[in-house]
Amino acid sequence: MERYIGSLRFDKALWEQDIAGSRAHARMLGRQGIIGADEAQKIVQGLDAIADEIRAGRFVWKDELEDVHMNIEARLTELVGDAGRKLHTGRSRNDQVGLDFRLFVSARLEGWSGLLAGLVEVLVGRAGEHVETLLPGYTHMQPAQPVSLGHHLLAYAWMFKRDFERCQDALKRAAVSPLGSAALAGTTFPLDPKAVAQELGLQGAFANSLDGVSDRDFVLEALFVASTVSMHLSRLCEEIILWANPNFGYVALPDAYATGSSIMPQKKNPDVAELMRGKTGRVYGALFTVMTLMKGLPLAYNRDMQEDKEPFFDADKTVSDSLAIMAEMMRAMAFRPERMREALKLGFLNATELADYLATKGVPFRVAHHVAGAAVALAEKSGRGLEDLSLEELRGLSDKIQEDVAGVLKYETAVTRRNTPGGTAPDRVREQIEFLKDWLMHL
Amino acid sequence: MERYIGSLRFDKALWEQDIAGSRAHARMLGRQGIIGADEAQKIVQGLDAIADEIRAGRFVWKDELEDVHMNIEARLTELVGDAGRKLHTGRSRNDQVGLDFRLFVSARLEGWSGLLAGLVEVLVGRAGEHVETLLPGYTHMQPAQPVSLGHHLLAYAWMFKRDFERCQDALKRAAVSPLGSAALAGTTFPLDPKAVAQELGLQGAFANSLDGVSDRDFVLEALFVASTVSMHLSRLCEEIILWANPNFGYVALPDAYATGSSIMPQKKNPDVAELMRGKTGRVYGALFTVMTLMKGLPLAYNRDMQEDKEPFFDADKTVSDSLAIMAEMMRAMAFRPERMREALKLGFLNATELADYLATKGVPFRVAHHVAGAAVALAEKSGRGLEDLSLEELRGLSDKIQEDVAGVLKYETAVTRRNTPGGTAPDRVREQIEFLKDWLMHL
Amino acid sequence: MERYIGSLRFDKALWEQDIAGSRAHARMLGRQGIIGADEAQKIVQGLDAIADEIRAGRFVWKDELEDVHMNIEARLTELVGDAGRKLHTGRSRNDQVGLDFRLFVSARLEGWSGLLAGLVEVLVGRAGEHVETLLPGYTHMQPAQPVSLGHHLLAYAWMFKRDFERCQDALKRAAVSPLGSAALAGTTFPLDPKAVAQELGLQGAFANSLDGVSDRDFVLEALFVASTVSMHLSRLCEEIILWANPNFGYVALPDAYATGSSIMPQKKNPDVAELMRGKTGRVYGALFTVMTLMKGLPLAYNRDMQEDKEPFFDADKTVSDSLAIMAEMMRAMAFRPERMREALKLGFLNATELADYLATKGVPFRVAHHVAGAAVALAEKSGRGLEDLSLEELRGLSDKIQEDVAGVLKYETAVTRRNTPGGTAPDRVREQIEFLKDWLMHL
Amino acid sequence: MERYIGSLRFDKALWEQDIAGSRAHARMLGRQGIIGADEAQKIVQGLDAIADEIRAGRFVWKDELEDVHMNIEARLTELVGDAGRKLHTGRSRNDQVGLDFRLFVSARLEGWSGLLAGLVEVLVGRAGEHVETLLPGYTHMQPAQPVSLGHHLLAYAWMFKRDFERCQDALKRAAVSPLGSAALAGTTFPLDPKAVAQELGLQGAFANSLDGVSDRDFVLEALFVASTVSMHLSRLCEEIILWANPNFGYVALPDAYATGSSIMPQKKNPDVAELMRGKTGRVYGALFTVMTLMKGLPLAYNRDMQEDKEPFFDADKTVSDSLAIMAEMMRAMAFRPERMREALKLGFLNATELADYLATKGVPFRVAHHVAGAAVALAEKSGRGLEDLSLEELRGLSDKIQEDVAGVLKYETAVTRRNTPGGTAPDRVREQIEFLKDWLMHL
Repeated sequence: MERYIGSLRFDKALWEQDIAGSRAHARMLGRQGIIGADEAQKIVQGLDAIADEIRAGRFVWKDELEDVHMNIEARLTELVGDAGRKLHTGRSRNDQVGLDFRLFVSARLEGWSGLLAGLVEVLVGRAGEHVETLLPGYTHMQPAQPVSLGHHLLAYAWMFKRDFERCQDALKRAAVSPLGSAALAGTTFPLDPKAVAQELGLQGAFANSLDGVSDRDFVLEALFVASTVSMHLSRLCEEIILWANPNFGYVALPDAYATGSSIMPQKKNPDVAELMRGKTGRVYGALFTVMTLMKGLPLAYNRDMQEDKEPFFDADKTVSDSLAIMAEMMRAMAFRPERMREALKLGFLNATELADYLATKGVPFRVAHHVAGAAVALAEKSGRGLEDLSLEELRGLSDKIQEDVAGVLKYETAVTRRNTPGGTAPDRVREQIEFLKDWLMHL
Repeated sequence: MERYIGSLRFDKALWEQDIAGSRAHARMLGRQGIIGADEAQKIVQGLDAIADEIRAGRFVWKDELEDVHMNIEARLTELVGDAGRKLHTGRSRNDQVGLDFRLFVSARLEGWSGLLAGLVEVLVGRAGEHVETLLPGYTHMQPAQPVSLGHHLLAYAWMFKRDFERCQDALKRAAVSPLGSAALAGTTFPLDPKAVAQELGLQGAFANSLDGVSDRDFVLEALFVASTVSMHLSRLCEEIILWANPNFGYVALPDAYATGSSIMPQKKNPDVAELMRGKTGRVYGALFTVMTLMKGLPLAYNRDMQEDKEPFFDADKTVSDSLAIMAEMMRAMAFRPERMREALKLGFLNATELADYLATKGVPFRVAHHVAGAAVALAEKSGRGLEDLSLEELRGLSDKIQEDVAGVLKYETAVTRRNTPGGTAPDRVREQIEFLKDWLMHL
Repeated sequence: MERYIGSLRFDKALWEQDIAGSRAHARMLGRQGIIGADEAQKIVQGLDAIADEIRAGRFVWKDELEDVHMNIEARLTELVGDAGRKLHTGRSRNDQVGLDFRLFVSARLEGWSGLLAGLVEVLVGRAGEHVETLLPGYTHMQPAQPVSLGHHLLAYAWMFKRDFERCQDALKRAAVSPLGSAALAGTTFPLDPKAVAQELGLQGAFANSLDGVSDRDFVLEALFVASTVSMHLSRLCEEIILWANPNFGYVALPDAYATGSSIMPQKKNPDVAELMRGKTGRVYGALFTVMTLMKGLPLAYNRDMQEDKEPFFDADKTVSDSLAIMAEMMRAMAFRPERMREALKLGFLNATELADYLATKGVPFRVAHHVAGAAVALAEKSGRGLEDLSLEELRGLSDKIQEDVAGVLKYETAVTRRNTPGGTAPDRVREQIEFLKDWLMHL
Repeated sequence: MERYIGSLRFDKALWEQDIAGSRAHARMLGRQGIIGADEAQKIVQGLDAIADEIRAGRFVWKDELEDVHMNIEARLTELVGDAGRKLHTGRSRNDQVGLDFRLFVSARLEGWSGLLAGLVEVLVGRAGEHVETLLPGYTHMQPAQPVSLGHHLLAYAWMFKRDFERCQDALKRAAVSPLGSAALAGTTFPLDPKAVAQELGLQGAFANSLDGVSDRDFVLEALFVASTVSMHLSRLCEEIILWANPNFGYVALPDAYATGSSIMPQKKNPDVAELMRGKTGRVYGALFTVMTLMKGLPLAYNRDMQEDKEPFFDADKTVSDSLAIMAEMMRAMAFRPERMREALKLGFLNATELADYLATKGVPFRVAHHVAGAAVALAEKSGRGLEDLSLEELRGLSDKIQEDVAGVLKYETAVTRRNTPGGTAPDRVREQIEFLKDWLMHL
């Protein structure tokens, strides 16, 4: 029962926020004359001493005191006596726990932002090395048109940049102090909620005490951001796993991110990417946990809400670790351009170009498409690429084809020609890189 | 199979966006000299004619043409001949469907914003009527302290205001044109993606073609906003359902939002509120549908993504209808202040005040709390409220109690005293109302 | 990274299953002559010694050995030398981890079954005390017809009995040994998978090695059962929370399952029921976690699957604790029949009976329904129940009403008359009790 | 509002069940003497006439009558007069809708069972053709050991067989009649619920009326089965999509299940498999929808429950179509054994065998593993398989290698040697086929 009800097991993680919040509350109580200035000072000193004890591992946590708040409060009273008892003036557990958790979530949203920017930076760096490395671009998992590896990596950079922006948007609603809501109705003491919010570096204070103690939108919003981050990571992991398969062979996994098999000597398993892909479920699950628990709850605080913390802590650990590890893994990833090039040939990635070429020679597109298809069939039969067909072979399919077709069938040409904004042409990829570098520099 | 693969059944809903997108694309093609100015004009006129046909119900939808895009394109070619075939220049189904859906989702985010503001307005209006109506404020579903009904209603107003802000934040990422991404790699035609975006009233154009055709963050983000809206509605519905129960009796449901029973003459069922609460599951389900389908998809477009539309359409209908109906239902809701007042007594909502009173008289809070508890027990035994106890009875519990206790035990006093920012005191409630009215006026 | 990849942190929980599985495997290897009989014996003795060490807390877990399997294997080799190395013959981590987890999940399905039966027993016991206690039966949360409290409690007993049956059905597919699947393709050693399964008390062995190492249906199925258990508990908790609210007052919460407020002396919060309701989200989340991670995984084993354990462990703890606590809480629950009876009157729970009475007197039902409605209105106006109206007052509404109406308006009559199988009449409730007692006795 | 509240739009689908249920109810009322035998007969005839009207498309559905039940009842009264009004005797909408939906869900569980058996049959058939076709078996998406294609296909057969069994288990709890529960408390008429259940071919009748009208476990359980079916399909689709990629090339998609690209002539997109994989989200979403809506609902019927039907109808359509289409697609699938064989070489799928071979020659396994690894490196450098290395080259790595190594390096050997029950050896695969054929024959 104690284990079932108690939260100390996990809310211990909030100790730093609890002390910061109490410190700000005590100072405000002092400034407002609700408690004596000396009492406020005593409390703050006591809280500082407790912070030192916890940091040093000397603090004795007591399960019977149920949660982090009671543990710190009880110790405070031991240290500074009666003044300690006054800390809770004009405050209730309901708004206190709200404040602590909002401080924590806000800090993590900032933390994720930093990790996301770090991953974007790595992707931009690797993209810079591979602006002119080509690989098959896929739709429907079928080779479609050649693209720049840099362009491909940047597609992920843009995803993570959006996640960054979502973190910042979520912060606007998370970094709000509910202190002063008291149990649910506000308090009879002349508190100054805005000053407390400001001292804690938050963006504002609550507007309605009932909402103040019962709002958990900020948890949901953070977990949703975590979910899109995880989804994006899962897509990148899927590609890493495929690319590490010898049928693709586009990457050689860095040893630190792969494991061998004690039985099968030829294996190099992409365990890290697989686990990271699997952990998507965990983060989605956390979001759903909190969405379910909030459904249909009447105002104001209900104890169900205690269940909002563990899913967040778990998702935070998953997302933070995953982002950091992905950045390192991508930094260390060895790309294999020669295997990518083989795949261009195997996938006839220049077939579109041949059709386009015929179209510019005045062949109706439908016919051009048909001729290109026939060329693919011819090449496939003999295990060659289109660029390996002789001019005679090609002219056997359409006499509009001339010597200049050779330039057209170069994969580089296909990429360079896609030169509108956002396209895969090297100059456009470099533009993206410049833009993102600039963005990173001004964060 | 046709039914399994085809999307016309549901993507018909995008016809207006498809035509708007094609119009802008054609004009741009003309301006850039990719097609002739006359051809561009013909296309635009043809599209306008098709829009008229659809609006008039004269357009013949053909299942064998699979989707809305092919239906419109085929009709265009019938109407304007060869020029129609040129509309698809530099465009692919992948970026076209992305654009159409982004236009639709953006329009709905604006639509939801309007409905949310409308609901806030109703809540603010009803709150204004009930600033001084008191009811028990609950925590843990136990009566805790008296609050203003206006304050209680405004708690929901603040929730829906946050949802409004989330809509606007989501718009920044939804209202982006992917046109020019073509199939996945960009195009060889000198398109001007930004001009198209601008003409369509969007906030910007894609930065990376692979991301452009494979990003579905905007759907997820909109569905997440829909989920928090639904969650907030479910909380309000839960309260309406409880309040309509005779043991509460805080509201008399307007007839239009309740149904009787053909068997049980005394019943008045809150069907609308129940259904709305139940529909939360539907919206959560839609979010999870799209989260699941996006997990682990490699770049770029995959046909799985076709499954993003129906969940959104369903969630949109649910959220739009629910918000509109809730606004009307709250506007028509009959509150029963007398039943609320009985519940204040039944729940001893002034017990905190008695304890506070004793504390101000110098009684240690622990003792004061004990005395108030004893008073509650005494009153409960005889079916009275604390305010019905005689001074003698009260003094029998503590001789610190004096005649002035009568004022303290008034529920109005408890409310008026909670006068810090965000508290339930009438002045503070009026402050919230002013703030929200101002916000509504400047939208 | 070690923390990210390693599983020792949580799979330690499988040590007992790991040792049991290895013991059975070693014995089989010995019987089949794959290793020497003496080697098999040495291994079994070594494993027994390790089990003792772990039980006694003397075993040294090493993080760098990554998981429970490697920790035990390494220690075994320390203890029994080269024989230890032979334990892994014909086995791989893939089928070993599958076996361990299936043993664990199967044990928990049995554990849940026991807890479910225990809860059914308590509900049956309490129902037996309250066969003739009446309370309002609700539909749409509106008082509908009086029902026996025993009948109401038994509704939950039937839910939990279904959960019990689902546990048993899930066991048929969980209690299957995958040992002998080896890494994915089976093994070259002449193993006897069925014998191992039998020795371990399982219901059978795998039929296909690829399926053997990649099937996680058993986890999903167990988590689904856990989800319906949680859903049923959440419904019961919702009622406990409402019934503890003074507007209902149908129960007085046992002190061990309620907490007071340090500020509000009148409060008694149903914290345990609230937390349990909230934990539903956690169990649903666990199911969704594993559903997400299994989506779209190709054959055979993928490292993603390592993520299947923590959600199960968490859901198991939640469900096991919740079931045990609910049984104790229901055993201790104090029902308040007098408050239920007041609510019968307040809700006009005999209105249906009045209409039926008139119908049997030859009044068309539509008219009868109307008269009963008028009687409700009359009584409501004066704060009385229908049974408090005088015969004159009633006859003022319809002259078909005669003295015998008094018996009809008794709530007991309404209940006793609903006497078909499964109805709320006392005899029918006693029938259910007998049936369930018999079921429990023959488990 | 009518659209929001009304259910006719979707519950029309239940007309056949509604008529069947009403027919059985009327006959029972007649047999029990509650209505006249002639009245019962009239009702049954009227219902038969209505069924004919609906089948013939002559029935006029009226939205203002809200649902399928009222539509049919109203028409019945038109057809047979007053007798029609008596049909509802001893019945309420609550138990009627429960019955109709249970009949529907039960029929679909049987329908799914048939489709699952059909898919198993196709897989068994195709496996029979490919017992000796070899392809790389993967773990971690890395080539691990060669397996029989038949074995691989059968892994899915076993999954779908488990789904079949889950359908049958779910039926035990779905095929239960709630008729006689009436609104919530049972009825005063002497009904015979078991006889009705029997006439409708159900497995039993309700035991508790409150549970009878508020149980939706059967919907959840069916949706869970649908979810595991979808998950299994998503895994198979993932493999089809990968195998259709030219880097794998293990299958040539039948034209009916692939679409070309209007732009890229070389493409053949696996649209059907992609869509089917994507639809997994939709089925998961349906499960979550109903799980969310049932959470925390108090007894007995609540209008929220009306929301249980559309998710089920949608999931049913998805699962039924997907199973039927997958069976046809697998029947038509063209496997390309020669590409599989190339991949065996590329993945060094005989490396385990080489290590085993050395081990049997007395080389310590660790050394053997090392030598095999060196052989892989040597072969990889020159683009060959291990079997292409000369005996000299191999002996350069270990002089234990002799001429008999050639037999060992044959992929067929690796497969044939894995000959324990459930292994991939051809005889074991044939055993599975026989078992499953027998199972199918005795359904």
